[in-house]
Amino acid sequence: MKIAFIGLGNMGAPMARNLLKHGHALQVFDLSAAACGALAEAGAAVCASPRAAAADTELVVTMLPAAAHVRGVLTGEQGVLAGIARGVTIVDSSTIDPASAQEFARLAQANGNAFVDAPVSGGTGGAAAGTLTFMVGASEALFASVSPALGAMGKNIVRCGDTGMGQVAKICNNLLLGITMAGVAEAMSLGATLGIDPKVLAGIINTSTGRCWSSDTYNPYPGIVETAPASRGYTGGFGADLMLKDLGLAFEAARTAKQPIFLGALAHQLYQAMSASGRGGLDFSAIISLYERHGAQS
Amino acid sequence: MKIAFIGLGNMGAPMARNLLKHGHALQVFDLSAAACGALAEAGAAVCASPRAAAADTELVVTMLPAAAHVRGVLTGEQGVLAGIARGVTIVDSSTIDPASAQEFARLAQANGNAFVDAPVSGGTGGAAAGTLTFMVGASEALFASVSPALGAMGKNIVRCGDTGMGQVAKICNNLLLGITMAGVAEAMSLGATLGIDPKVLAGIINTSTGRCWSSDTYNPYPGIVETAPASRGYTGGFGADLMLKDLGLAFEAARTAKQPIFLGALAHQLYQAMSASGRGGLDFSAIISLYERHGAQS
Amino acid sequence: MKIAFIGLGNMGAPMARNLLKHGHALQVFDLSAAACGALAEAGAAVCASPRAAAADTELVVTMLPAAAHVRGVLTGEQGVLAGIARGVTIVDSSTIDPASAQEFARLAQANGNAFVDAPVSGGTGGAAAGTLTFMVGASEALFASVSPALGAMGKNIVRCGDTGMGQVAKICNNLLLGITMAGVAEAMSLGATLGIDPKVLAGIINTSTGRCWSSDTYNPYPGIVETAPASRGYTGGFGADLMLKDLGLAFEAARTAKQPIFLGALAHQLYQAMSASGRGGLDFSAIISLYERHGAQS
Amino acid sequence: MKIAFIGLGNMGAPMARNLLKHGHALQVFDLSAAACGALAEAGAAVCASPRAAAADTELVVTMLPAAAHVRGVLTGEQGVLAGIARGVTIVDSSTIDPASAQEFARLAQANGNAFVDAPVSGGTGGAAAGTLTFMVGASEALFASVSPALGAMGKNIVRCGDTGMGQVAKICNNLLLGITMAGVAEAMSLGATLGIDPKVLAGIINTSTGRCWSSDTYNPYPGIVETAPASRGYTGGFGADLMLKDLGLAFEAARTAKQPIFLGALAHQLYQAMSASGRGGLDFSAIISLYERHGAQS
Repeated sequence: MKIAFIGLGNMGAPMARNLLKHGHALQVFDLSAAACGALAEAGAAVCASPRAAAADTELVVTMLPAAAHVRGVLTGEQGVLAGIARGVTIVDSSTIDPASAQEFARLAQANGNAFVDAPVSGGTGGAAAGTLTFMVGASEALFASVSPALGAMGKNIVRCGDTGMGQVAKICNNLLLGITMAGVAEAMSLGATLGIDPKVLAGIINTSTGRCWSSDTYNPYPGIVETAPASRGYTGGFGADLMLKDLGLAFEAARTAKQPIFLGALAHQLYQAMSASGRGGLDFSAIISLYERHGAQS
Repeated sequence: MKIAFIGLGNMGAPMARNLLKHGHALQVFDLSAAACGALAEAGAAVCASPRAAAADTELVVTMLPAAAHVRGVLTGEQGVLAGIARGVTIVDSSTIDPASAQEFARLAQANGNAFVDAPVSGGTGGAAAGTLTFMVGASEALFASVSPALGAMGKNIVRCGDTGMGQVAKICNNLLLGITMAGVAEAMSLGATLGIDPKVLAGIINTSTGRCWSSDTYNPYPGIVETAPASRGYTGGFGADLMLKDLGLAFEAARTAKQPIFLGALAHQLYQAMSASGRGGLDFSAIISLYERHGAQS
Repeated sequence: MKIAFIGLGNMGAPMARNLLKHGHALQVFDLSAAACGALAEAGAAVCASPRAAAADTELVVTMLPAAAHVRGVLTGEQGVLAGIARGVTIVDSSTIDPASAQEFARLAQANGNAFVDAPVSGGTGGAAAGTLTFMVGASEALFASVSPALGAMGKNIVRCGDTGMGQVAKICNNLLLGITMAGVAEAMSLGATLGIDPKVLAGIINTSTGRCWSSDTYNPYPGIVETAPASRGYTGGFGADLMLKDLGLAFEAARTAKQPIFLGALAHQLYQAMSASGRGGLDFSAIISLYERHGAQS
Repeated sequence: MKIAFIGLGNMGAPMARNLLKHGHALQVFDLSAAACGALAEAGAAVCASPRAAAADTELVVTMLPAAAHVRGVLTGEQGVLAGIARGVTIVDSSTIDPASAQEFARLAQANGNAFVDAPVSGGTGGAAAGTLTFMVGASEALFASVSPALGAMGKNIVRCGDTGMGQVAKICNNLLLGITMAGVAEAMSLGATLGIDPKVLAGIINTSTGRCWSSDTYNPYPGIVETAPASRGYTGGFGADLMLKDLGLAFEAARTAKQPIFLGALAHQLYQAMSASGRGGLDFSAIISLYERHGAQS
């Protein structure tokens, strides 16, 4: 299959490589010449614009930082919609707000194209291993048509509903993730301050009603889960600034829908405070640093 | 073994019955004559006071609503400490603040007795089935000595550390539970408002990083988990007023230790608001009602 | 002076009338024919587009609901920038985000025009009476040039700094207002629940360190301030949905600047909850309804 | 008048001195010999216990850190109630929870005495100058009988209602104060980050709807109010740990009454975080430090 791939960053590059590995032909575009060069070595054809990359392909995949970038890549003079053939589908794997995804679908339709929102989870590790989860917003027919290509990049390809519902699933999951991680940080910090062995506490929680991924797989307290960023200085993993971005999307979607998200709004502020203190580049589980006590009399 | 059991409420009564079933002899006390009568029919000897119940026993178990009740039962003129023989151990399965547990241990020690904090999880169902989890704060030797009796009432008997650490484990877990449940309510409500099928969203969350007991086992959205209170009108289960009490204990412990619990304090207020609206008797997962939209334009 | 006035809503219409009363000639535009008709009766010339209204004038004033409307009115094919003469200044009295105001200033400058942000406080009453406060973002020279015209519509014309700083002043003040109002609602509700006479409590607060406009001038508890919306069923005044909008602007500005606003984010959610319950049209002081207790046992 | 004064700390000592200055005879007690010695030099008779101090007096005044101390001073074997003559009134100026004040009133009544809660505002400066405000919970007759003595220590003696209502007024005012101060910190920090001159912003707020004591008299941003702690490194003033204590009392009263205080609970956590970082001894307006941005990219 001949596929255009636009956006070759930390996530996009390994995803594109997996398409190549599965025998697809790739036309790629990125603003970074270095990123393009690396993909060229792997066998992709580098193009001068999204428009050029989209020309003569059977599928277009985009993986970009935010809705504004997707808009530019799609609708610019040298954009995808100017180069794509009628009937070809665009799969956007960026994490953006659902309303923008739905707007892009309308723009694509007016151009004679289908648009699928398919944000991912699994991080850079999952992107490299081809084990990403794709949360797809598309009709059943459209879902069936894009699933094979997505299968080259991920393990779980899940239809979440019609256009925009992939993004809804992603931001709702990450809203909950942002809350549970801060919640675990809070419970572990309180327990440690009160004198319980953190490992014992984690053991209790993980077999009880407080059990969650943020505790049993990614515990923010150092030394609990050997493979978690907390056990290697909060490096790698999912950056706090990315969590901040996703909570911002949840906030914006909730604001537009007039839907209260009390804990989410507060969690957002906690990651904001972490970022404001210059630690936004650390893994988001470093939120536990907000709960440290220095020089306090207890 | 001859055991005194004090406090025959919704939890205490089935726990006492399980001790009887395992062949222990019971001397019981409760302020309610009806509660005492029911245990008498099951074979327990009813006593006129905690002091009388504690006399001539090898172990004392208490299961009471709050620290003030435990204090009264232990230290009153007709209290346990006045009747108990030197060397006999007191196991308190009430959920109370760790500082009170540690104080009671000192009072017991001054009286020549050991005191073990052993709060439980598992609810009235677990109490009846004898499948409770006991979170025990005691020295290793003391833990070994009380474990057999606790084993008649529960399935998991876990040593959490020294005196008070059973309570610390319990309140830290329930702090996290109160947060994750409100977090799931928030994520599910936002998703539903944005148009995703709640079952699909729960499916995504339960296989992704938002995964937690509050979502996969006890989802607050109706119709997701058949056995959860949300699927039967939020009846039964763990009452919001009990969650409010446990978050109050967490708050108090955190306040004394000068440990911030940002999300916990806000979650506490959400359950408080639920209780203030007259719904404190519903299962705590009914917190999702705070996120309902009525007549709003979206 | 010949002035274009675009946006004849609840605020814009009385502001335009005051310009007429002070002898200015007006060319007006609004999407509502009725709104235009009313101004025509008062002596304004009704135009078919913002472009037409802006033609041949010495000053353009816009008063619109949100940044998107301002953008459309300025940059549309039939927009102000297409009709305005070089050198003429545009004063935007809409409440919008500072970043948009700064962007509009750049667009105006590229068109040979100056742009002044001048949001107001004082409500529809102040608009009718000509007693509004204008918070102006402009150079000193530009401020001097627009002040006389603004003086026809308001009493306090305050320079807050360069472009955008009028909006910054407005949203920071309203952020604080949203917080203090909810704070007063909280303190008054708690006091009443604990048994103090609300009038006595307000008296204490208003002569003590809790003193604030939300308490001494606009108290949300019924019967404290006779002229406040709380004493007339929360009708009139400043709608909760407008407060929600302003807190949304503060949130967005804070998010972009990575500046935590813990209480503001929570207050935003409280007004959101009020709006979600269908009461967004009431005065914002009705936020006190979130603190009512129904059927709770105290 | 012969008065017993118990508790000669930062507040109590200058209050006792003012009673001496107004010609009252004083019997004093404090655990600190140094504090007693200083008062002895000023003319007070030092006693060996609260019981001894209360003997043969016409009025007893207590000024202590918390309810537990008041309880001890009143009910201990060497306590006030053991030494006081029947019919003599006890005035407690400590800030404690209303429920404890009401309980102490019952204990006093059972002993043949009246009990008045009369917490103060005005700080150590007001205590020295004799300009404190007393918030009094007492019947009208009792209020009339104690007012003259209180008038020697304060300027405003306000009856807030029956027993406990003095404490209710105090904690509700300070709840609001804790919220407004954090709110001003938030609004000033956001404004400064967005580029407005903080003095200009404060000027706008102080003449607009955000106006409050925390902004116009005690602004937390350095350099705005010359006499405020913010302009002298946050020294002196009202310590954050004292605000934390008062918010804790508000929280506890709200919890018992099942009254939500959303913003108050969050503000409590913010002061908690400040205290946990070792800055609880600074003036509470130093809460603005939580909003500082370090190394963040904006």
